[in-house]
Amino acid sequence: METLTVALADRAYPIHVGRALLDRGDLLLPYLRQPKVAIVSNTTVAPLYLERLSGSLRRAGIEVVEIILPDGEAFKNWQTLTTIFDVLLQARCERATTLLALGGGVVGDMTGFAAACFQRGMPFIQIPTTLLAQVDSSVGGKTAINHPLGKNMIGAFHQPKLVLADTDTLKTLPDRELRAGLAEVIKYGLIRDLPFFEWLEVHLEGLLCRDPELLAEAIVRSCRNKAEVVVADEHESGERALLNLGHTFGHAIETAMGYGQWLHGEAVAAGTLIAAQLSSQLGWLGASEIERVVRLFQRAGLPVFGPPLAVERYLELMQHDKKVREGKLRFVLLKDIGQAVVSEVAAESEVRRAILARSAHA
Amino acid sequence: METLTVALADRAYPIHVGRALLDRGDLLLPYLRQPKVAIVSNTTVAPLYLERLSGSLRRAGIEVVEIILPDGEAFKNWQTLTTIFDVLLQARCERATTLLALGGGVVGDMTGFAAACFQRGMPFIQIPTTLLAQVDSSVGGKTAINHPLGKNMIGAFHQPKLVLADTDTLKTLPDRELRAGLAEVIKYGLIRDLPFFEWLEVHLEGLLCRDPELLAEAIVRSCRNKAEVVVADEHESGERALLNLGHTFGHAIETAMGYGQWLHGEAVAAGTLIAAQLSSQLGWLGASEIERVVRLFQRAGLPVFGPPLAVERYLELMQHDKKVREGKLRFVLLKDIGQAVVSEVAAESEVRRAILARSAHA
Repeated sequence: METLTVALADRAYPIHVGRALLDRGDLLLPYLRQPKVAIVSNTTVAPLYLERLSGSLRRAGIEVVEIILPDGEAFKNWQTLTTIFDVLLQARCERATTLLALGGGVVGDMTGFAAACFQRGMPFIQIPTTLLAQVDSSVGGKTAINHPLGKNMIGAFHQPKLVLADTDTLKTLPDRELRAGLAEVIKYGLIRDLPFFEWLEVHLEGLLCRDPELLAEAIVRSCRNKAEVVVADEHESGERALLNLGHTFGHAIETAMGYGQWLHGEAVAAGTLIAAQLSSQLGWLGASEIERVVRLFQRAGLPVFGPPLAVERYLELMQHDKKVREGKLRFVLLKDIGQAVVSEVAAESEVRRAILARSAHA
Repeated sequence: METLTVALADRAYPIHVGRALLDRGDLLLPYLRQPKVAIVSNTTVAPLYLERLSGSLRRAGIEVVEIILPDGEAFKNWQTLTTIFDVLLQARCERATTLLALGGGVVGDMTGFAAACFQRGMPFIQIPTTLLAQVDSSVGGKTAINHPLGKNMIGAFHQPKLVLADTDTLKTLPDRELRAGLAEVIKYGLIRDLPFFEWLEVHLEGLLCRDPELLAEAIVRSCRNKAEVVVADEHESGERALLNLGHTFGHAIETAMGYGQWLHGEAVAAGTLIAAQLSSQLGWLGASEIERVVRLFQRAGLPVFGPPLAVERYLELMQHDKKVREGKLRFVLLKDIGQAVVSEVAAESEVRRAILARSAHA
């Protein structure tokens, strides 16, 4: 087991990465404020892993309440969230009860937001079971639900007390979800870590074959990047926005296609290539760099073109992007591989051109 | 105009109390991050005051979006909250847009919670138009909506940037709401300010006659008490719970009777007398003190008995109180007039006795 720390002063917390951690209820005990937890999971993950986690906690004398949500981004909304509140109240959970998120990004985001709001704030712990959640969404305290007009529009910053990433859970992850998770892994290399990008170029097939050591290293290096950025800018007033490379376009794709049709990582991959294209139009990224980026996403089996979506639809949905300021879009762009910036300089005509260049044609 | 400060380090903010403040858009300008606001009000308050506030802001060059909610505690729920989100998105409001709450406690609580969640947090300003909101709910950053099983169950701590209390708005306040507001005013005297309680004993009729100077003094003295408590314990880990005198019983009354049937202040008045009764059973409050408290609430025209509600129903609903710890109820009780404490000592049999003694019989 390897342990990193998100060094946020009075809200610092550890990230444990390793094997068979689901059986280690003992790792959670120091973080509980009372001998009672509520575990939120979904209909896919619960049959695989819930009993192991619950059992390990019950053996340690902890009362466990279980909350099973439907699976998928399409359910990341208020209606599902109220299911959590209903059960918490019926089961007499209190401000000091800890909420555990056992699942992927959707479960983690919703559980975190429920914890942020229930009785105005209760503690929670992230136990991510997908690659995407282990490398990205479980770390950093961003929680949210979707709104029909925009992804992650309603949410809160609420840091977990602990992140427990059991790499064994990746054995049961569908291929498509493994690939989607790799999009966020590649992102760290692109925005701030050229050596990591180069390491990924060497080891991508090993990761796709789920070599446990390689996966663990990719997770740890990703989390280290994420933790550094979050500590420098917890509430995204500056640097943290870089983590959103490809997300402005990606969120538009997810919202337009219907939540869950494109996986988040798939939309981020296509969005990242639109951002790379725009960067190259601005003269920042050369043709050979673009080619390198495209090739890595292709090897990962990720889409390198967006869906056949009208440019107008992108522009309309992107108006709701959280980075918009005074009506002006701001994009995360690449000065080079390993060096991202937030920029307002792109003219709308250039944005249109980049989207067109990187969209599948209907 | 008198100005107090809620001295919360990097989140300190002023409370302005005075006349004709709705015309003073200039007081808001220093707190806006962009020349755009969204004003949330309700169908009762908007026809009276919205145009004055909007006009004053528009003349200062501010773009104003208006959001009118249905009036009443019964609408303090997720469905109404989504109305706010829908309009914010349709009107292209951003993270840096400021939300203004123009109305009573319900509008303030919902607007504050919407501001806490929209794009994970936007600034907001409280412009309370009821006595209850001016003396209590607009100050301190508690925001929430109700759940069918419990009042204010879903919410956030989110401090406003400014509180603007225009005492002229109290001229149009229905008598019943004025009286309800006085319940929270009396509360400050009871929990920590004996001289204020004595001042209220002298001036209660003047307050009921809406003497503007007396009202302004009552508001300022209430806000000063509130601000001191909030600064000492923003997130209610200790002393702040004292502000909940009468609220454990009061919330049970509001929830059981149907939100809006009993006004919050009415339920708090009846709840405070149950708490006083319990305090006297514990030997803390003498018969003459109880009598003084009852008399002041009676003069204010507030209920001094709870509704004919089964004791079991109280106990059931109070299990969801946010002060519950490890299944154990905690009450705010009175050691004396002007001196409240949080206590776990009351046995359930004593709690039952106090409720019965202070309930109207069906």
